[in-house]
Amino acid sequence: MPTNKQWIYARKPEGQVTAEHFAPRQSDIGAPGEGEVLVKTTLLSLDPASRAWMQGRTYRAMLEPGEVMAGWGLGEVVQSNDARYSQGDLVSGEFGWQQYAVMPGRALSKHDTRHKPEHLLGALGVTGLTAYFGMIDVGRPRPGETVLVSGAAGAVGSIAGQIAKISGCRVVGSTSSAEKCRFIVEELGFDAAVNYRDGDLIGQLRKTCPNGIDVYFDNTGGDMLAAALARMNLFGRVACCGAISQYNAVTPEPGPQGVPGFLVTKRIRMEGFVVMDFYQRKTQAEAALSAWLDSGRLKAPVDIVEGFDNMPHALEGLFAGKNKGKLMVRV
Amino acid sequence: MPTNKQWIYARKPEGQVTAEHFAPRQSDIGAPGEGEVLVKTTLLSLDPASRAWMQGRTYRAMLEPGEVMAGWGLGEVVQSNDARYSQGDLVSGEFGWQQYAVMPGRALSKHDTRHKPEHLLGALGVTGLTAYFGMIDVGRPRPGETVLVSGAAGAVGSIAGQIAKISGCRVVGSTSSAEKCRFIVEELGFDAAVNYRDGDLIGQLRKTCPNGIDVYFDNTGGDMLAAALARMNLFGRVACCGAISQYNAVTPEPGPQGVPGFLVTKRIRMEGFVVMDFYQRKTQAEAALSAWLDSGRLKAPVDIVEGFDNMPHALEGLFAGKNKGKLMVRV
Repeated sequence: MPTNKQWIYARKPEGQVTAEHFAPRQSDIGAPGEGEVLVKTTLLSLDPASRAWMQGRTYRAMLEPGEVMAGWGLGEVVQSNDARYSQGDLVSGEFGWQQYAVMPGRALSKHDTRHKPEHLLGALGVTGLTAYFGMIDVGRPRPGETVLVSGAAGAVGSIAGQIAKISGCRVVGSTSSAEKCRFIVEELGFDAAVNYRDGDLIGQLRKTCPNGIDVYFDNTGGDMLAAALARMNLFGRVACCGAISQYNAVTPEPGPQGVPGFLVTKRIRMEGFVVMDFYQRKTQAEAALSAWLDSGRLKAPVDIVEGFDNMPHALEGLFAGKNKGKLMVRV
Repeated sequence: MPTNKQWIYARKPEGQVTAEHFAPRQSDIGAPGEGEVLVKTTLLSLDPASRAWMQGRTYRAMLEPGEVMAGWGLGEVVQSNDARYSQGDLVSGEFGWQQYAVMPGRALSKHDTRHKPEHLLGALGVTGLTAYFGMIDVGRPRPGETVLVSGAAGAVGSIAGQIAKISGCRVVGSTSSAEKCRFIVEELGFDAAVNYRDGDLIGQLRKTCPNGIDVYFDNTGGDMLAAALARMNLFGRVACCGAISQYNAVTPEPGPQGVPGFLVTKRIRMEGFVVMDFYQRKTQAEAALSAWLDSGRLKAPVDIVEGFDNMPHALEGLFAGKNKGKLMVRV
C-alpha cells in the first residue's frame, strides 16, 4: 500500500513565511469510518489566507505547529462510506497538504467533469465565489462607476476585476510589477493598472481614476487601502477581502490614515466578508461564474506548479507575488 | 438701530483650537432681500465638527479665515420676505456666530413652541437626529445586543446611548472623567461606563462588555476605536459619527490597528454617515424623539453658557470635555 506524503506546519513564522516553516512527513493512509470518504488529492490550492491562519484565530481556529498544513484541494474518491459518493467521483474540500485525506462526507463538494479541474479549484471554487460575493454583494458596483481592485493579478483579484467589468464599470487594478500590470490590462481587460512598487499611490490613482473611486475591492490593506480611501467618492464602498500586506508583519502595523475621518466625511461603508457567509446563494453564483467562463467573458488564469514536494516553495512564491492568477500545485 | 455682534474665524489653528483663533466684530444688521428672512439669534449650538470644518473640506466647504464662524442656532424672525415666515416665528438654521442673520427662507426650519427651545437645538434638532439615524439606521441594534458609545456624556453620545437602551440593548458608554461616568450611568441609565483616561481600554471593555460588542457608535476615533474593534463580535457594526480625538491633531495620526484585519475575520461593517443624508425621514425621527422626550424615556441634558461674548471659550471647553450633554450659548 502506498504511504501518504504530508507537509506539516512545523513552526510559527516571525515575519515572512518560508519553506523552513514546513516539514515533510510520511504517514499511513487512513481508513474511512462510517460516513467518511478517502480522497486522493490531485490539485492543491495556495492561498494568502494561509499566513493569517498561522497568526491567530480568523474565521477558523489558529493553525498549531504539528498539524498537517491546511489548504483546499481537488481530488478523486478512492473509497466511500457515504452513500452520496462513489469511487472515482471528483470532489473538493479542505484536504490539507497531503496526498490522501480521510474526510467526513458532509465536508466535501462533488463536481461534474464538464469543467477543467483547475477551474473547480479556482474561478468556480472558493476563489471565484469570494470574488463574486465580495464584488456583487459587498461592493455593489453600478454601471459607469469606477472600481479599484488590489492584488489584481492574483486569484481573487483577477476574477473580481472582471466581474466589475461585466457589471459595466471602469476597472483599475493594482499589482506588483510592470509585467503583471500589462497582464491585467492586455489579457484580462482591465482599463488601467497601478504598479504599487512605483510609489506615489495617490498620484497614480489620480491619473488612473480621474473620476474618483466608487468601489475598492481590497486584498492588501496597508498603503493601498489608505490611498484608496483618500481617492474615494462620496458613498464609496470598500469590500475588505484580505490584507496580504499585513500577514507577514512581525508586529501589527497601524491602520490606514483616514479611518475614521474619511469614512465620516465621505459616508464610506467599509465591510469585511468571508465567503462562507454567502453559501446559501452558492448555486446562483456558480451558475453566473460558469456561464461567464463558458462564454469567454471571464478569463480564469491559473499558475500550476508541478509536484507535491514543491508546496512550501510555491507558498513562498505566492507571498513574493510571483503568480499570475490562481496558484495551485499538481500533486 | 442696534448693531450686529459677530465672532469671526480669524486664523487657522495648528493643533488645539482656542479662543485666540476668533475675533469679535461689529457689523450692520443686514436687510433681507426677496425670499430672505432676518433672524435674531437666541441660542447657538457648539459642536465638535466645527474643528473639522477648519481643517478641510468635510460635508461642507472648508471654513476660511475672515468668515463669520459657522454654527447652528435657534432664533426669532424679526422681518420676513418669505411668505412661510412671520415676525415672531421660532426658527432654526445655520446662522453662524452672530446676533442677527439674514437667511434664505428655504434654509430655515420653523418650530412650534410646545418644546423647550434648548431641546429644539439639542435632542429634537441636528444632535438628536444624528444620534437617531446613526444608531437606528447605521448601527441597527437588536434587543439583547451590547452597544458601546464613545463621547457618551456629550450631546450626540448621550442621546445615542439612550436610543440603544430603548431598543433593548445593554449599553456601555466611554467618557473622560469619573464624574461623567457616574452621570451617564446614574442619570441617563447606561449599564456601565469606561473612563478612557484610566487607560487599559481593552481590559475595561472586557469587564464592561463581557459578551463582546455588537454595535459601536463612534464619536472619537483613535484608541477607543481600536479597542472596540478588538472587542467586537462577529458581524459587528461601527457607526462612524465623528472623530473628536483627531480634530486637534497637528499631523494626521495613523488609523486604528486591526483595519482591515478585524473587519475581515469578524465580518465587521464600518460605516460613516452624515445626518443630512437621512433627512427624507426627518419627520419620522422627530416624532420618535419627541415622544420619548415627552414620556420621560429620553433625557436630554443641556449645558448652557450665558452670553454671546463667551462663544470662543465655550468652544474651548467643548474640546476640553467640560460639558455634560448638549453645549450651547444663550445669546
